[in-house]
Amino acid sequence: MSRSTQPRLAAMVTVSFPDQSWLDDVGPVDGITPVVWDPEGPVPDDDVEVFVAPYMGGARSVEPVAQKPSVRLVQLFSAGYEDVLPVLPKGVALANGAGVHDDSTAELAVGLALASLRGIDDAARDMTSGSWTAHRRQRRSLADSRVLLLGYGSIGRAITRRLVPFEVSVTAVASRARAGDDLVQTVHGVDELAELLPQHDVVVVIVPLTDATAGLLGDELLGALPDGALVVNVARGPVLDTDAVLRQAGRIFFALDVTDPEPLPADHPLWSAPGVLVTPHVGGMSTAFRPRGVRLLREQLRALGAGEDPINVVGHG
Amino acid sequence: MSRSTQPRLAAMVTVSFPDQSWLDDVGPVDGITPVVWDPEGPVPDDDVEVFVAPYMGGARSVEPVAQKPSVRLVQLFSAGYEDVLPVLPKGVALANGAGVHDDSTAELAVGLALASLRGIDDAARDMTSGSWTAHRRQRRSLADSRVLLLGYGSIGRAITRRLVPFEVSVTAVASRARAGDDLVQTVHGVDELAELLPQHDVVVVIVPLTDATAGLLGDELLGALPDGALVVNVARGPVLDTDAVLRQAGRIFFALDVTDPEPLPADHPLWSAPGVLVTPHVGGMSTAFRPRGVRLLREQLRALGAGEDPINVVGHG
Repeated sequence: MSRSTQPRLAAMVTVSFPDQSWLDDVGPVDGITPVVWDPEGPVPDDDVEVFVAPYMGGARSVEPVAQKPSVRLVQLFSAGYEDVLPVLPKGVALANGAGVHDDSTAELAVGLALASLRGIDDAARDMTSGSWTAHRRQRRSLADSRVLLLGYGSIGRAITRRLVPFEVSVTAVASRARAGDDLVQTVHGVDELAELLPQHDVVVVIVPLTDATAGLLGDELLGALPDGALVVNVARGPVLDTDAVLRQAGRIFFALDVTDPEPLPADHPLWSAPGVLVTPHVGGMSTAFRPRGVRLLREQLRALGAGEDPINVVGHG
Repeated sequence: MSRSTQPRLAAMVTVSFPDQSWLDDVGPVDGITPVVWDPEGPVPDDDVEVFVAPYMGGARSVEPVAQKPSVRLVQLFSAGYEDVLPVLPKGVALANGAGVHDDSTAELAVGLALASLRGIDDAARDMTSGSWTAHRRQRRSLADSRVLLLGYGSIGRAITRRLVPFEVSVTAVASRARAGDDLVQTVHGVDELAELLPQHDVVVVIVPLTDATAGLLGDELLGALPDGALVVNVARGPVLDTDAVLRQAGRIFFALDVTDPEPLPADHPLWSAPGVLVTPHVGGMSTAFRPRGVRLLREQLRALGAGEDPINVVGHG
């Protein structure tokens, strides 16, 4: 989508929004002609060049793009896009919503850690029986904890920024070792994980799901954690081996916003495994989404309207 | 307890610890003779001058001090001391555990806010029925929230430090208006509360319980909060008017680590009031306590051993 070779005046880009409210919130952008295209409804007559998919619409909501050969870019609000790539017509570029969910996911990660560590989950359940004392005991504090961030992209950094004032030490681990930043002295490589885990009390998982990370935390690495450690997963369910989680539950704690399978069937043993807290994949489901989604669209459309290359491109059909 | 008038060599101070583990953890301090005095056990023969009360022992654990006229200072680990003052023998000074619980209470306050806002409490309860969808919906994020700290002492500041990276705005309110610090531009006076509350989404209560703060948040001030606001109480139960809380529950949310009455009886309506999360007064019940308690004792004993005035003195018998 290199519009920069075209003359500026010809660069009016027709962009479809999933509903009028997005169009209203984003407002006018130079060089952009906005239209509404709800993928559940009819395909519009306009020569839509940029298709903004509805949030949480999944691959199905992108399928109608095949009927509109003018589309050259599909914009998602989600960070994940594995499911959309296969339905993307050939040559169409895909931009994801990287950054949009950082704040929402980061605060849920910290909330899950605090809820599990301090027994807020037990307390919530004890309310139904009116019991003040059932689980009233000293808990591990987040303060003084040694936290390992498994994944140190933009969400990993957003989590770290929030953790720093809690009197913790933070170890960052990414696919490859690299220099640190303003938050951590160094970023360790994932090959150091087995060596690092025994020295940590809390692990927050926020790696993308790839062939390299699927099943990464199984019996071996979970077994390397000290008794009473906590694993928070706000990445994707399959990064943890669910059977290994069930075997380790009780020895270590888990706070999982994502699971494998997902949704978790009503009779799944994870629901009742000891020391396991499950939230139903709500990392991005907060009021933080909308203003950040609007901000991303404005940035993207400003770039396109100015004849620049699109931002956040993660693949092509 | 002005030992500074005595010659340095005569200044050996006999200090009793509630058990051997405290003595071991604190270690030797110049000028201090340590002994163990478990107030549940016999009164020791030593001329104990400083009595360290067991954590959560309450007034009862300080009563044996009356049998030992040599005691001139009682050291508590708790911040609150209202209940101990009446049992303190005449002339005995009382030092509290100010600072010891800041980190633990501050992290619980943030944890309660995140758990309530993001529905972690609902999710924990939904686990018992294996329901992925019962409460799966968009929640209010902490990000973008306007947070009001009602109380801005050392715990209030510890909470604020932790909140700042969550993309919130923080308004500090204390008994009297004063200049701000490195975290807030200004500290508002409690007389501005009615005017400030309508502009806030989250209120964190961390004022001491006094005649001025008992029942402070009743129908009028709670009613000034916008629909869907959240009140977190990590101070003392009676700062909120429980009947008013029950009337406002459903319109606004509450996350309460302290209640009135406390403990909450099994049949109390707060347990099942809509949008109310209760934890059983566990603000200080975490592993953060011990190292900070040890640190406080070391500071106190170093001062006394050096012939200086005791720190943290809050009253006298």
